[in-house]
This record gives sequence, C-alpha cells and structure tokens, in this order.
Amino acid sequence: MSKITIVGGGLVGSLLAIFLAKRGHTVSVYERRGDPRKTDVYAGRSINLVVSHRGWTALRAAGVEVAVKQITVPVYASMMHDRDGKLNRVPYSIDNRAIYSVSRGELNRRLLSEAEQLPNVKLHFDHKCVDVDLETATCRFLPNGGEVIGVKADVVFGSDGAFSAVRAKMMLGRFTYSQEYIEHDYKEVAFPANADGTPKMDPQCLHIWPRRYYMMMGLANQDGGFTGTLFMPNTHTENAPGFDTVKTEEQARKFFAEHFADALPIVPDIVEQYMRNPQSSLAIIRCNPWTVNGKVALIGDAAHAIVPFYGEGMNAGYEDCKVLNDLLNEHGDDNWGHVLNAYGKARKPNGDAIADLSLRNFVEMRDLVADPKFLLRRKIEGHLQAKHPDQWLPLYSQVKFSDIQYKDAWREGLRHDRIMEEVLAIPGIEEKWESAEVEKRVMELVKAG
Amino acid sequence: MSKITIVGGGLVGSLLAIFLAKRGHTVSVYERRGDPRKTDVYAGRSINLVVSHRGWTALRAAGVEVAVKQITVPVYASMMHDRDGKLNRVPYSIDNRAIYSVSRGELNRRLLSEAEQLPNVKLHFDHKCVDVDLETATCRFLPNGGEVIGVKADVVFGSDGAFSAVRAKMMLGRFTYSQEYIEHDYKEVAFPANADGTPKMDPQCLHIWPRRYYMMMGLANQDGGFTGTLFMPNTHTENAPGFDTVKTEEQARKFFAEHFADALPIVPDIVEQYMRNPQSSLAIIRCNPWTVNGKVALIGDAAHAIVPFYGEGMNAGYEDCKVLNDLLNEHGDDNWGHVLNAYGKARKPNGDAIADLSLRNFVEMRDLVADPKFLLRRKIEGHLQAKHPDQWLPLYSQVKFSDIQYKDAWREGLRHDRIMEEVLAIPGIEEKWESAEVEKRVMELVKAG
Repeated sequence: MSKITIVGGGLVGSLLAIFLAKRGHTVSVYERRGDPRKTDVYAGRSINLVVSHRGWTALRAAGVEVAVKQITVPVYASMMHDRDGKLNRVPYSIDNRAIYSVSRGELNRRLLSEAEQLPNVKLHFDHKCVDVDLETATCRFLPNGGEVIGVKADVVFGSDGAFSAVRAKMMLGRFTYSQEYIEHDYKEVAFPANADGTPKMDPQCLHIWPRRYYMMMGLANQDGGFTGTLFMPNTHTENAPGFDTVKTEEQARKFFAEHFADALPIVPDIVEQYMRNPQSSLAIIRCNPWTVNGKVALIGDAAHAIVPFYGEGMNAGYEDCKVLNDLLNEHGDDNWGHVLNAYGKARKPNGDAIADLSLRNFVEMRDLVADPKFLLRRKIEGHLQAKHPDQWLPLYSQVKFSDIQYKDAWREGLRHDRIMEEVLAIPGIEEKWESAEVEKRVMELVKAG
Repeated sequence: MSKITIVGGGLVGSLLAIFLAKRGHTVSVYERRGDPRKTDVYAGRSINLVVSHRGWTALRAAGVEVAVKQITVPVYASMMHDRDGKLNRVPYSIDNRAIYSVSRGELNRRLLSEAEQLPNVKLHFDHKCVDVDLETATCRFLPNGGEVIGVKADVVFGSDGAFSAVRAKMMLGRFTYSQEYIEHDYKEVAFPANADGTPKMDPQCLHIWPRRYYMMMGLANQDGGFTGTLFMPNTHTENAPGFDTVKTEEQARKFFAEHFADALPIVPDIVEQYMRNPQSSLAIIRCNPWTVNGKVALIGDAAHAIVPFYGEGMNAGYEDCKVLNDLLNEHGDDNWGHVLNAYGKARKPNGDAIADLSLRNFVEMRDLVADPKFLLRRKIEGHLQAKHPDQWLPLYSQVKFSDIQYKDAWREGLRHDRIMEEVLAIPGIEEKWESAEVEKRVMELVKAG
C-alpha cells in the first residue's frame, strides 16, 4: 500500500481521499483554507451544485451515496421566468428523472466528515502548498503561522482547483496549458425562504431568468431558500449592460426592476446583496499531460476547470475519481506509473469535451431556452426518445442521466445538431412534428450515421 | 519624463532601453543573468537570428542601425541540401534582397553597450525579478547573493522572455494565456570555419537540410563558421526518428551518416556535439491583455513567444518597440495609460499572426521546400511579382522585406494560397506557368478579391 498526499481538500480531494483510504492507502489531505466545518469559507461567492447521474455513480462506488443524498434537493425541470414574470416549466427528461441540488459548503463538510472517519485518512487545514518536487513526490506546505514542512509520498494528487499549485509546478516543464476567462462574471444572490421555512418558488426546478446576453439562475437549498447567481458581461456592449454599467445602488435598482421584476418581491434586499457581494470571474483551464513521472497527477478542476453552465464541474471531478478507482481495480495498487498514465489518457479527452459542452450550454441557458425553435426541438427529441429509446437519447440526458463518456456524448450531440437542423427546416414542422413522416425522415438520418 | 523599469536585458529589453532613454526617460534595466559581455550566457543553446526589413526599420528609428549592421552577414537565398548532398539554391526575392544573419550573443552585447552609453540608462545584471506590484509599478529583485530590493517606477516593461516573471504576475488576474510546446525539440551544432577563416559553405545562404519530419539548418557567423540547429521530434514515430531514439553515440553516428551525410566532413565532431549539447524545447505563448493598469506592459517574447521557423521572433519584438515609440510620438510621453492601451491593441493581433505564420513556415522549411509543386509555385509567384509588382507581393516578401503588418500579411497569404491552389490545378501548369493565359487567370482571381 502507498503513502498518498492529496493537495486540496475540496469536493474532489475529499472524495478521492475516501476512495484511496478504502483501498488501504495511507492518505494525507492538505487544504489551504480553514476547516469548512468551523468557518464559512465560501461566503458570498458560491454557485450551487447539482449532482447528476455520473456523480451518483462515483459517490456510490465510494460508499457515500446515502450520506450525500440526505443533503440534496431533487430538481426535475428548468423553470423559465420571462420579463413579465410568466413561467414556463420544461422537464429535464421524458421519464421524470432528476438532478440534485446541493450547497457546496454542505457537501464539502459532509465528505470531509466521511473521510475523517477512516483511520488511514489525516486532514490538515490551513496548509498552503508552496512547492512540489515532481521527481520525488515531495510537497512543501506552509501551515498558517508556522514553518514550512516537507512531506514525501509515493504519489501526489493535485485536487487543488482552478488555480492549482501542483499544476503551476508542472507548467515549468514541457506542459501544454491554457486559461481563458469568459466575458461573463458572476455574483451570488441569496433567495430567502418564507418565515415558516417554506420555499417561495418551486424547489424542484432550476429557475432561470434568460435574458440573452445575461441571465440569473436559482437552485434550491434544503432550508427553503435558493442560491441565486447573476451572470453578466464584465463590460457592457451596445446590446446589454455589464457589471461596469451597473455599479451604483441606483443603477442596480433600475437594473433589477427592469429585467428581473418578479424576483424583487422574493429577494427584497437584492440590491443590497448586489452591492455587497464580490464579483467573481469564470475561467476555462485546459492542460496536458495530467500526470508526470508516474507520481504526480491532477484531478478535478486542477486538470479541467470549466464554466458552470452544465452543472458538471463537480461531476466530472467525481468521475475522475471513479475512473482512477476502476483502473486501480484493474491494474492493482502497486502499479502507479501505469495507472496514472492510463488515467490521464482516459480522462483528458473527456475534460476537453465537458469544457466545450459547458460553453455550449451557456448559450442554451441564457438565450435558446427562450427561443420557440429550440423548445420545439426539445419536444421533437422527447417524442423521438419515447418512440425509439434505444436510438435517440437527447444530449442533455446523455450528459446528466447516463455514464456515457463526455467525449462520446459531445460527438453524438453534434450529430443530433446536424439532424435536427434538417428536421427543423421541414416546411410546416411546427404543425407536423409528431407525424409519421417526420419520424421516418429522422430515423433515416440516424441510420445514415 | 518618467521613471522606467525594464525587466529583462535581452535583445528587446536593450533596444527598448535605447528608445526610451533617447526620449529622455530614466531607464533601469534588470537582467536575471550575468552580463553577456563578461560571460557566455547562451553557451550551446542558441539559434542564430536574422534581422529582416522591419527589424532594420526599428533599429534605424533607435539610431543603432549602423552599429548592428557591422556584425551581420547578408543572406540572399536558402540552400537546400538533399540526402545525396545535391544543392539547390532558392533566392528569397526576385530583386536580390537579403535578410541578415547575426549571433544572438553578439547582438545582445552590442545593444547593451549602445544603451550603456546613454547617461540615463542604468544596467543591473544578476538581478532576478521575484515580484511585481501591478498597482504601483513596483518590482522586487533578488540580486545574486544579495537581499531583495524594491524598485518603484512609473512604468514597468516585462521584456523578460518566454518565461516572463512579469507575465506570471499578470496571470493571477483576469488574463487569457496559453502555452503550447510543439513536438519538435532542437539542439545546436556549431559548424567551424576553414583553418584560414574562410567559410566551408556559401555564407550568404541559409542552409537547410529538409527531411520532412525533422530538419537541420545553418546560418553564417562573421568568423566563417555557421550556427547549425537540428530540429527533431521529441518522441519518434513510425515515420521518423526522435530524440528518444537517437540517444547513444552509435545511434547518433548512424543518424547523421544516414540523413546528413554531406554535413559530416564540414562538422567532423558533429556526434560529439550532439552528445554534449543540451536539448531544448520550443513553445508558443499567447496572452491577453499585454498591458495592465496603464503601468505594466509585456513586450517581445514575454508577450508573444513563437517558434523560430520564420526567423521573426526578434523582429516582432523590435517592431513592438518601434510601434510603442511611434505612439509616444503621437500621444506624448506623459500619457502612459493611453499609449500602453493603444500599444497592446495594435500589437496583439500581429503577435497572433506571426505565431501562426511561424508554424506555417516550419512545414515549408522541413517539407515543402523539397516539393516540386511548391518550388513551381515560388517560380509562378516570382513571375507575377515581376510583371505586377503592385498587385502581387509573395507572403515571404511581405513578412521579411516590408513593414506590412503581420496580420495583414497573414490574411493576404491565405488569399494567395486559395489563388495558387486554383492555378496549380490548371492542367499542364508545369509547362505553361509563364503563359499569358495563366497570368490572365491569376489577375482575374486577384481582382475578384
């Protein structure tokens, strides 16, 4: 059995610790921040998360599915809020499947406690990674207010997020890397529950206020409140406001009244929150290779930070852990060089695919969900899926309700786009989308490959 | 007048110091390495440089054209060496224009001495930049064996190369960045002169041994020798050897005898050099923005590290300096916020274009220059240029023999590709490329835009 250092005790680091400790390895987790069970480390800058099918697959494999399920809220549909406050509920699947909303802090706390129960896991908070020797798998940590310590291990995992210190060290070698900020930043807005603890909106929906160039969304918490997030360009354009033109309290008041009128009664202090909460940016990070020397590996956001619009960032990281665990099952626990190499090769194309898928979903969420053609396409796809479940699984279902690899889902999704483009161009499609004629045409296109 | 810190005293930093000091600014240059006039800082890992038209434009504007010309060797053509040692000379232009070979060390030493003559330039060697405060334009330097010092300025330029410390600080903010290593690494090989100091090959040619998947090139030095460079994939493929399969002395001997037979008598110790010299890698670095807070700016390789196959890396950096100087002429020397912003906006698209152009030229150099179709295209383009000099300037001439912006040259080059693809597809083009019929067809395509 091996001595493992995990740099970063967030969502992925804590699950990875559970996986590896249950295999019998000796695991030490070093986290830069304090213990989230003692202080609120995410204050005002969190986006709620959703656990999807593949996230559950990984949590189940680690034996923590039940512990996590207790703190989630199922979400069956997106609920669109138009400018007039009119609602439109669009289910995520034809068979009543759900994704599961969870607060980042809650989930992190739960997994850390699960990890800590294992005798061969040791958690160290307030330890900043200041160096990694990639040859010897030795990390150097600076404890809060202490002296630098050196920790030698057999294997080091960098699960230290988008701004990974482990990755920074790998970057000094032959390492392909890109970071790209999207134009949109975000701010958290907390939606309170009613005084009696009941929710003010349907908690089993992801609420979206799509406004084309910007948008707000809200995901339920267990306490009846919602964590809302406003996404808006950093800099305004002729088409849309930006954080740079919504700066004063007066500008913010006008902005919310004009574009999100139905949210005002639900969040009476929305302007105060807007003025108070930090503005955060969103980056896409890609790199290669994910492992070096058969001793150091990146996992989760450290390897593939993506934009949050598919709600898959955490699920992708959990799937990383699950795949690693499967490879250890296959090749044994004393064959790290081989296992890490196979892990990187298997996961890198999927990291790229979910990065692309997430950008694509941003366009859908802020824009297309308000487009009649897009809604028609959803209906057609649902109809096809119902009639030919083995031949048509909509892209969203592949990503959220299956374990199909992201890279395969992405390829299939692009094929669906080409087919649906033809279908939506059929004259009179609005009337005859359920007809045998249309179904026959689609099936021909599907078979043509 | 302003207080300027230049981080990095290489090719671009030293020229920038001259430009800014001549305007009256107080300039301090901090270089990580020692003084190249005292020690050989480039030992065994240098690729010779060529000064092209736009490089001269910048050097002239800085008043150092004559000083630099003295240490260069004009190069009028490329000389291809095939596997049998057969030579084929291909001039760079139809009007006998030259690029100018120069050793990196020589040029750096010359420019540092030119800069040092200016009373308002101060050079500091062995000073490593360990931090930059982007808000206050304050750098912290660690002198060799000394204590960290803080240096506050009005403006900081990062001309500290591909692995820029200034850029590393900018990366922590909202900053788009990518680094990409190409598969090919390189090794330097020194070609000696004859005993009497005369060169063993035509010094007025860039010598190329194109071998499709790898290549060697040689550029003349003033001492009658050549600086040669072998470019080869890091890892072998089924098509070609790689540095990983040419490792032992025996493998190297076999490799050079098989693929570069005519170089062996010229460089008798080529195998010993191969075994001794370090293997270096080649990265393309792109980032955005190049300036921050109207106080800190990247310039040269720090902003746009490219592969060396167009010989334009230094020229691009020199053009950065010239454009900055022009903007200071236009907007005045007390308007840095405006000038730096305009500088970044003007130069970034050109940095991207020369990065793309350089990758493209790698394919030409190692591969196409041995292709009859490509050589025919060159002849056709020369013919067109001779007959319609105002309507057809080959891409190479735009890049090397003009001040046309890289971005415009790149666009025009892609247009040329489309036109030439049609022309080369004309049946019997090999026989009738000089005919009026072909000329008419091309001119129609040119006018069609």
